[in-house]
Amino acid sequence: MGMANELSAVEAARRIRAGELTATALVEACLARIEAREDAVLAWQHLDAEGALAAARARDGEAPRGVLHGLPVGFKDIIETASMPTTHGSPIFAGHRPDRDAACVGLVEAAGGIVLGKTVTTEFAVSHPGKTRNPHNPAHTPGGSSSGSAAAVADNMVPLAFGTQTGGSVLRPSSFCGVVGYKPTLGQFSFVGVNAMSLSLDTLGVHTRSVADAGLMRAAMLGAPAEPTAPERAPRIGLCRTPWWDQADECSQAAVLAAAEAARAAGASLVEVDVPHDFDSLPEANNQIMGHEGCRALGDLHKLHGDLLSAELKRRIFDPDFTYDAYVAARRQAAFCQALLGELMADLDALLVPAAVGEAPAGLESTGNALFNRAWTTIGVPAISLPGHVGPTGLPVGAQLVAPFGRDDELLAVALWQEAAMAP
Amino acid sequence: MGMANELSAVEAARRIRAGELTATALVEACLARIEAREDAVLAWQHLDAEGALAAARARDGEAPRGVLHGLPVGFKDIIETASMPTTHGSPIFAGHRPDRDAACVGLVEAAGGIVLGKTVTTEFAVSHPGKTRNPHNPAHTPGGSSSGSAAAVADNMVPLAFGTQTGGSVLRPSSFCGVVGYKPTLGQFSFVGVNAMSLSLDTLGVHTRSVADAGLMRAAMLGAPAEPTAPERAPRIGLCRTPWWDQADECSQAAVLAAAEAARAAGASLVEVDVPHDFDSLPEANNQIMGHEGCRALGDLHKLHGDLLSAELKRRIFDPDFTYDAYVAARRQAAFCQALLGELMADLDALLVPAAVGEAPAGLESTGNALFNRAWTTIGVPAISLPGHVGPTGLPVGAQLVAPFGRDDELLAVALWQEAAMAP
Repeated sequence: MGMANELSAVEAARRIRAGELTATALVEACLARIEAREDAVLAWQHLDAEGALAAARARDGEAPRGVLHGLPVGFKDIIETASMPTTHGSPIFAGHRPDRDAACVGLVEAAGGIVLGKTVTTEFAVSHPGKTRNPHNPAHTPGGSSSGSAAAVADNMVPLAFGTQTGGSVLRPSSFCGVVGYKPTLGQFSFVGVNAMSLSLDTLGVHTRSVADAGLMRAAMLGAPAEPTAPERAPRIGLCRTPWWDQADECSQAAVLAAAEAARAAGASLVEVDVPHDFDSLPEANNQIMGHEGCRALGDLHKLHGDLLSAELKRRIFDPDFTYDAYVAARRQAAFCQALLGELMADLDALLVPAAVGEAPAGLESTGNALFNRAWTTIGVPAISLPGHVGPTGLPVGAQLVAPFGRDDELLAVALWQEAAMAP
Repeated sequence: MGMANELSAVEAARRIRAGELTATALVEACLARIEAREDAVLAWQHLDAEGALAAARARDGEAPRGVLHGLPVGFKDIIETASMPTTHGSPIFAGHRPDRDAACVGLVEAAGGIVLGKTVTTEFAVSHPGKTRNPHNPAHTPGGSSSGSAAAVADNMVPLAFGTQTGGSVLRPSSFCGVVGYKPTLGQFSFVGVNAMSLSLDTLGVHTRSVADAGLMRAAMLGAPAEPTAPERAPRIGLCRTPWWDQADECSQAAVLAAAEAARAAGASLVEVDVPHDFDSLPEANNQIMGHEGCRALGDLHKLHGDLLSAELKRRIFDPDFTYDAYVAARRQAAFCQALLGELMADLDALLVPAAVGEAPAGLESTGNALFNRAWTTIGVPAISLPGHVGPTGLPVGAQLVAPFGRDDELLAVALWQEAAMAP
């Protein structure tokens, strides 16, 4: 049972339910992995080993609460926890202890899950990096802003961890670290109790090591069926190079094309699709919305604690170029393109697009480029990154599947199918 | 200057800028009005007379900060204030003092506004009423959930007050109290630091005594032009009886028809419009989304303090009928109808629809029915209620103008025109 930490969430939950594994043994295995690897990965902002073990013993002594019974979960450190500090990745909140749990914490516990600890985030989930390193190569960034969550799941420290995405902060680190990253339709996973910056974009998502595990978290958060439904027929997938294809590294293009080829070989109907030109400037619209809403959300902190905000955050958010007209135009464009995508995909189950520009860049001073995530975040549609490809440096490169607004069940079904098609 | 509290925000700001009125005199006039009337209206949860006077003296001694310089503002008591308690209308939070200001508080202060106090809300802005009475007749409800804000503005206690709308909580009390209620496009007025229950619906808005005053607040919140632009031509207005017309009292139907006649007489192009049948169940979709998201948002409070939640809230939010499938379907319907409205209104500047079922009902045990607001909240589009009509009991009845997603500037322009057309 020493490898219990390597199990998928679904398999660990099954074994716990069947009496083949205890929650205590699972948490111990995760803690042992963290003990062995944390000095190299630095994924955790706060770890509550004693609390997690006590909760595991309690889970072992009670009837199953729900789909996550006995499973440890990592929470990005912009998610408020009453039982642990919540720093938001900022010295302003060093040691800060919220008086309430975020909604997702309560939903995880109600489903039997265990709060293992808080994972490292960039400063307020924007760009200024935390300490985390890429578990595949410590000289490279794990991506951001959900750096610790992606790295911890990739390194088998925990099977499930929450991330948030305002630009590309769930999908990009998932691609860089080689895990599944799932960003639901905007608003579905409750953002209540998570530090908000741009509520028109801020989306709670999850990092896992399998598509089914993402479905398990969806069940805990929303009451969805615990097992994603397999598609009734081979899926219809649109291969979409996107307007930004030329800015993708060869390895990211190759990841998409390899995923397409695997889908075709497994029987998918595959068509090439272009998004309308209305999509071209959605990455810039993402930037405008984030900046306009973010400088208002963080205005109080800027006034009271401006000296404790990074120069990078101040440059990124408090930029006079974020005008009213650009903001209003960007949000109208977002709503328009959200509807356009639904029309474009009337006969398609998912679009296959790049997940990231390429491999995780060398160095820890930047968490990389969210270019291939911004459009889908801006229009609020569900997206999932699947690992499987490896770039020239030996680092993972994901491929992204996208579906229209609210079609998360369909997206997870296709992703489950695609995951099987890509399995070695 | 004893009537300074009766001035519109725009006129008070002009006089302060011109040196014809001091912020101190304005705040004193508002406090005098509150002193005279609060026993009857009960609009305030917490009032900081000394703090407001000190801030007013400071504003009088400095260069104008922005468009709200010297103006007192009321904040619904689900908006976090570091300088005052924030109860969320619940005994769970009696005396609770947040450690940060909501974004809107900071934006008001940055624009020169003054936090006068916190206004009464229903419990967590749902249905269990607070103590406030309708200022036109204390035996009638002021509406909810933004009860205190609508009543305080109607009673000339303060020129501007924030409300929030998840179902009909800005527009309905505005209609009942006879003030302008403006709910912007979802997400535009920052909800950061406001108690969230259903972030797919929760919208910060404002109660004022004129359309131009709503534009002034929009300028403070978003950097919009301080004066709504008058339409270049007579507006094109769609008279829309909505699928729920038969459920409107005669006086609410009459308010809409009178507004239409006033618009026509002033030169508007007026056409009768039906919304597609996809809209029929949007009020129920609103209920499903609010319930599904709300019971997750409030789950922690329910677990820890269930005995302090009202039976009404528990029945309203913790209802097992809020299923996953209904939630997902409701949010997809909302996105679809949002786009449909844009298509339907390609040649229209605004829809004219009922603002409420009728006059404010007698009694304080219910805050009334949000039927005529739910659809527009659900699809995230801007809406404004204009007073002007009077029902059989002598109470005000508003008429509502609605525009497509993101077309707030156009809506305020039409509303300004309509307000002039309806002026006695």
